[in-house]
Amino acid sequence: MLSKNQHKLITSLRQKKYRNQHQLFVVEGVKVINEFLKSKFQLEKIFCTEDYESSIEEYEPQLITENELSKISNLATPNKVLGLFKISTTVELIDKGLILVLDTVNDPGNLGTIIRLCDWFGVSQLVCSTTTVDCYNTKVVQASMGSLTRLSITYTDLQSYLQHTKLPIYGATMHGEKTESISKKEDAILVMGNESNGISNEIEELLTCQITIPRYNEKSCIESLNVATATAILLNEFRK
Amino acid sequence: MLSKNQHKLITSLRQKKYRNQHQLFVVEGVKVINEFLKSKFQLEKIFCTEDYESSIEEYEPQLITENELSKISNLATPNKVLGLFKISTTVELIDKGLILVLDTVNDPGNLGTIIRLCDWFGVSQLVCSTTTVDCYNTKVVQASMGSLTRLSITYTDLQSYLQHTKLPIYGATMHGEKTESISKKEDAILVMGNESNGISNEIEELLTCQITIPRYNEKSCIESLNVATATAILLNEFRK
Repeated sequence: MLSKNQHKLITSLRQKKYRNQHQLFVVEGVKVINEFLKSKFQLEKIFCTEDYESSIEEYEPQLITENELSKISNLATPNKVLGLFKISTTVELIDKGLILVLDTVNDPGNLGTIIRLCDWFGVSQLVCSTTTVDCYNTKVVQASMGSLTRLSITYTDLQSYLQHTKLPIYGATMHGEKTESISKKEDAILVMGNESNGISNEIEELLTCQITIPRYNEKSCIESLNVATATAILLNEFRK
Repeated sequence: MLSKNQHKLITSLRQKKYRNQHQLFVVEGVKVINEFLKSKFQLEKIFCTEDYESSIEEYEPQLITENELSKISNLATPNKVLGLFKISTTVELIDKGLILVLDTVNDPGNLGTIIRLCDWFGVSQLVCSTTTVDCYNTKVVQASMGSLTRLSITYTDLQSYLQHTKLPIYGATMHGEKTESISKKEDAILVMGNESNGISNEIEELLTCQITIPRYNEKSCIESLNVATATAILLNEFRK
């Protein structure tokens, strides 16, 4: 049984304003929930349908009906369980390893994919401009499929952050050097830009090296690759 | 003014069954339409709002209202123009260059992204299993952003196609050789598999070489990369 207030709280968390106010976010579905239960994230409350109760008994789930779940779920096909987790507090950034920086990435699907890529390629620090889509957005949480639990994500003023780092700053632009011909440092920052406009001018000025993925097809009219696929290619290059 | 029959025809094309029956598909929005108008695809009929009429006068557009456009549009924000184009007839496959093969890729967004990647990396032949999502699906057309016009796409029985080719067949699996250590031929086939299950067993048996993108992070729990990002990394590797 779900109370009116619970229903209201959970659906309000679709909006960033209320996630910030309550310092909570929603995680759904058997597979993703399991990764969050094992993670650093603190569980606030978990709801599940009867058939799933025995699997998560230790977390004292509140039983709800399929119908109630479908009303609070953000998934096309709700999947047995929905949890509220506490937003983790920011950790200090360390000038070590490969750090990925996102300048105004807007699409939740892209951010989710990029978080998965960070997980795969062992990038443990992701730094986002305050204009980048919220990583606790439901679509981001679900698209990143648990990878969010293995990453530290910081939202900050990029200009100030990049002005104060001692690391070399690489950035993906349309007029840089070819990926192959660049020497890539182990401790470094890689900046990826907005879906339509790329890296903003203020940030481009702070780059120490501009990288471009060569376009093989001269007849192609596309101006750039999708930011998630470009990130995939560059992280793979940095990790070799 | 849009007739009832036109409305019915256009909305029916959201379904593959009717696209096949009428041999037509829908393209929308100023940018994407322009690429299709310049392409090999034959225009059947074009509709636009009044403010866009002068830009495409030569194609004799039928004027419709914003309201009519919003009713037939598949976009969240309809954008002035919608065209019906004829589905292009299949061309013969040639055993030359790098050919990308998709085994049951289901997600339209993934196929759209992969079509853009083919365009960028100069892969001119894309071969899909008959179980792969239809490339004339509206979401695929819009996600590929005109790249569809610079590519030949064939749906066929993969097993039979791969049994008869003389090209080496590379395939992305979880237990292959590392991408770096593989010698990549210029004329070759690269097979990518389904989002959840990868390459099917029947097809895996036909591979001459299995490739795996190394996972850098041993603590990561993700089993695989998204098929579009994996395709990006491998096409970039093949094109070096």
